[in-house]
Amino acid sequence: RKRILITGGAGFVGSHLVDKLMKQGHEVTVVDNFFTGRKKNVEHWIGHENFELIHADIVNPLFIEVDQIYHLASPASPPNYMYNPVKTLKTNTIGTINMLGLAKRCRARILLASTSEVYGDPEVHPQKESYWGHVNPIGPRSCYDEGKRAAESLCYAYKKQENIEIRVARIFNTFGPRMHMNDGRVVSNFILQALQDSPITIYGKGDQTRSFQYVSDLVDGLVALMNSDYDLPVNIGNPDEYTIKEFASEILKRVGGKSEIINKEAVTDDPSRRKPDISLAKLHLHWQPRVKVMDGVNKTIEYFREELRHSN
Amino acid sequence: RKRILITGGAGFVGSHLVDKLMKQGHEVTVVDNFFTGRKKNVEHWIGHENFELIHADIVNPLFIEVDQIYHLASPASPPNYMYNPVKTLKTNTIGTINMLGLAKRCRARILLASTSEVYGDPEVHPQKESYWGHVNPIGPRSCYDEGKRAAESLCYAYKKQENIEIRVARIFNTFGPRMHMNDGRVVSNFILQALQDSPITIYGKGDQTRSFQYVSDLVDGLVALMNSDYDLPVNIGNPDEYTIKEFASEILKRVGGKSEIINKEAVTDDPSRRKPDISLAKLHLHWQPRVKVMDGVNKTIEYFREELRHSN
Ligand SMILES: NC(=O)c1ccc[n+]([C@@H]2O[C@H](COP(=O)([O-])OP(=O)(O)OC[C@H]3O[C@@H](n4cnc5c(N)ncnc54)[C@H](O)[C@@H]3O)[C@@H](O)[C@H]2O)c1
Ligand SMILES: NC(=O)c1ccc[n+]([C@@H]2O[C@H](COP(=O)([O-])OP(=O)(O)OC[C@H]3O[C@@H](n4cnc5c(N)ncnc54)[C@H](O)[C@@H]3O)[C@@H](O)[C@H]2O)c1
Ligand SMILES: O=c1ccn([C@@H]2O[C@H](COP(=O)(O)OP(=O)(O)O)[C@@H](O)[C@H]2O)c(=O)[nH]1
Ligand SMILES: O=c1ccn([C@@H]2O[C@H](COP(=O)(O)OP(=O)(O)O)[C@@H](O)[C@H]2O)c(=O)[nH]1
Ligand SMILES: O=c1ccn([C@@H]2O[C@H](COP(=O)(O)OP(=O)(O)O)[C@@H](O)[C@H]2O)c(=O)[nH]1
Ligand SMILES: O=c1ccn([C@@H]2O[C@H](COP(=O)(O)OP(=O)(O)O)[C@@H](O)[C@H]2O)c(=O)[nH]1
Repeated sequence: RKRILITGGAGFVGSHLVDKLMKQGHEVTVVDNFFTGRKKNVEHWIGHENFELIHADIVNPLFIEVDQIYHLASPASPPNYMYNPVKTLKTNTIGTINMLGLAKRCRARILLASTSEVYGDPEVHPQKESYWGHVNPIGPRSCYDEGKRAAESLCYAYKKQENIEIRVARIFNTFGPRMHMNDGRVVSNFILQALQDSPITIYGKGDQTRSFQYVSDLVDGLVALMNSDYDLPVNIGNPDEYTIKEFASEILKRVGGKSEIINKEAVTDDPSRRKPDISLAKLHLHWQPRVKVMDGVNKTIEYFREELRHSN
Repeated sequence: RKRILITGGAGFVGSHLVDKLMKQGHEVTVVDNFFTGRKKNVEHWIGHENFELIHADIVNPLFIEVDQIYHLASPASPPNYMYNPVKTLKTNTIGTINMLGLAKRCRARILLASTSEVYGDPEVHPQKESYWGHVNPIGPRSCYDEGKRAAESLCYAYKKQENIEIRVARIFNTFGPRMHMNDGRVVSNFILQALQDSPITIYGKGDQTRSFQYVSDLVDGLVALMNSDYDLPVNIGNPDEYTIKEFASEILKRVGGKSEIINKEAVTDDPSRRKPDISLAKLHLHWQPRVKVMDGVNKTIEYFREELRHSN
């Protein structure tokens, strides 16, 4: 039984991780500033003796005693991270420094939730961890991309300098229940649009690709990585690749309804393709995705249907 | 007459900038933690009514009143920035955030001393500002490269969010008097080795290239950029490109002496070539280098000859 801190634990991914670790019997502490996270995502644990929820911002120092840190706090969807680029960078630089400082003082192991965005608009396909990436350092997405690259660099600097045990997960697009309704990411947008008979908005021509993983697979991967001996970056994603156009049709087919599919203006620096090479995760973590993407989509449709029912 | 802050003003480049701005009659304040800088570099101004030297670390907040900030504080040579990668990253992230916070409060214009290292090991040659770069986010140089990329991203984030006036200079290899003797950079190493009849140490085969600029050109470029209206990144460098092998012979020829040229182990992730495209600087700043590289080398040899004489 370990004392585990989850930063950003009231968010989409973090709250599923809380569920898994609580069920395993650990003592779980969540730190969240509720920028995009919600108490609702973890309310079923409030009052449990092994659970604690701290309302705090990781840009400020945090002094508690822990054995492991899952460091997930960061805005994650493009509209959220572009909303306040200064805050996105502060969270990923100062916030990460604080969590590394905490890990150093407690001699705790820390896992950084990094992202496939460190590969930018990739020139190699699929992306291996050894690929250095193709990122615009001053574009509108750079607050997130460069913030996460700096966070990775900080992890390896603390490892070298202070002998901190670090783990780095490069997470590819993930979806599932508890995604925020107004999150702006493609899966939630398309499902909500289809459920509400509104137009399904494809940004650009829709030829860009993404590889989508269901959230339970990600959470299994994160826990496997944390408890493995491998300390270089590992891709965690589902290699099942779709064009955004195909994905829109698949969702529309499953939801039914009268939505039309429309094209909106393309987004600046939108990566044209994204697909993880997961050989390292298979080799070192014995992990691979188990949920078929469309099974996950069906579950997520059900979740949003319920959410809409409650909000009306 | 302006109130000008120079962070890292006791260092090599900073101290030449101090000279130029003091001669123009400005009020100049230097902030330096003396990590690689030395009081000696600015001692000729100590006591002058327009000059102030603050011994402080920019990782801590700084509250003074200023009109312009030249933000140069950062270790700059590979051995120095790899000596403590955590500190290098803190200086470039937290330190830059503090200076942007200061700029925001004072409504001051801020110029970031960025670097050609943001291009990493470039796949296009020469490098234009529009090139996104090829940088290893977790390699031994990443504390500096990613630190500076994050610093650039921070500048544009503060510009967007807070309307700060920013200027970004991407500086290519610069040399001249007041380079630190133990700085470890190629120009000081080779000259000192030649002056002392020690072996001239080429890392790897010496086929890698660099483009070297004399420090007075850089300082002119920085001042021109600060006072221009152009707020995207601008390369400041001399396109005169040498292989390290050629450069070693040129220096040996000029110094004379009995040094042999030897090859040592190649350095990890050492960029294979580097040459600025300076069209933007010519167009927007009406700037271009004026000092011939070998004239600069001669002056630098004289400087180090004097330094050695004094230290013996
Ligand atoms: N979901 C994905 O597809 C995906 C892909 C790649 C990487 N990631 C990474 O996974 C992590 C979690 O993403 P998510 O999808 O759950 O997003 P999310 O927005 O649902 O969760 C992020 C959580 O962090 C909290 N937070 C943000 N800034 C904070 C701060 N300064 N202090 C304290 N808490 C703060 C938010 O309130 C929220 O609860 C993020 O680091 C994200 O970058 C996610
Ligand atoms: N000289 C070059 O070839 C070159 C090339 C590209 C970029 N640059 C950039 O130009 C700037 C100046 O470089 P330089 O060659 O004069 O190096 P330098 O090492 O001589 O000067 C850096 C100065 O910053 C000070 N400093 C470092 N960390 C600090 C901190 N945390 N707080 C306060 N002061 C701090 C040092 O003491 C030193 O005086 C650096 O930002 C560097 O990255 C230089
Ligand atoms: O338990 C801790 C220990 C440190 N820190 C923060 O982590 C940062 C980085 O820690 P580090 O040990 O590198 O910094 P130092 O204390 O040496 O400045 C510090 O600024 C602290 O604010 C924290 O939040 N909790
Ligand atoms: O309503 C939407 C939202 C997103 N996208 C596209 O879907 C892809 C994935 O976007 P998302 O924001 O989910 O994540 P990203 O991978 O870009 O971070 C990108 O190409 C977006 O331009 C879209 O076409 N319509
Ligand atoms: O005159 C100033 C104003 C701000 N700061 C620092 O700059 C940082 C960033 O400033 P910003 O205004 O973005 O931050 P805030 O004060 O809103 O947290 C702050 O944390 C301060 O430590 C500073 O050093 N000098
Ligand atoms: O004693 C030395 C110092 C540097 N170099 C090489 O010279 C080039 C420039 O190195 P420097 O450290 O001056 O600057 P960089 O451009 O790499 O930041 C690099 O290829 C180094 O490997 C060398 O061959 N011998």
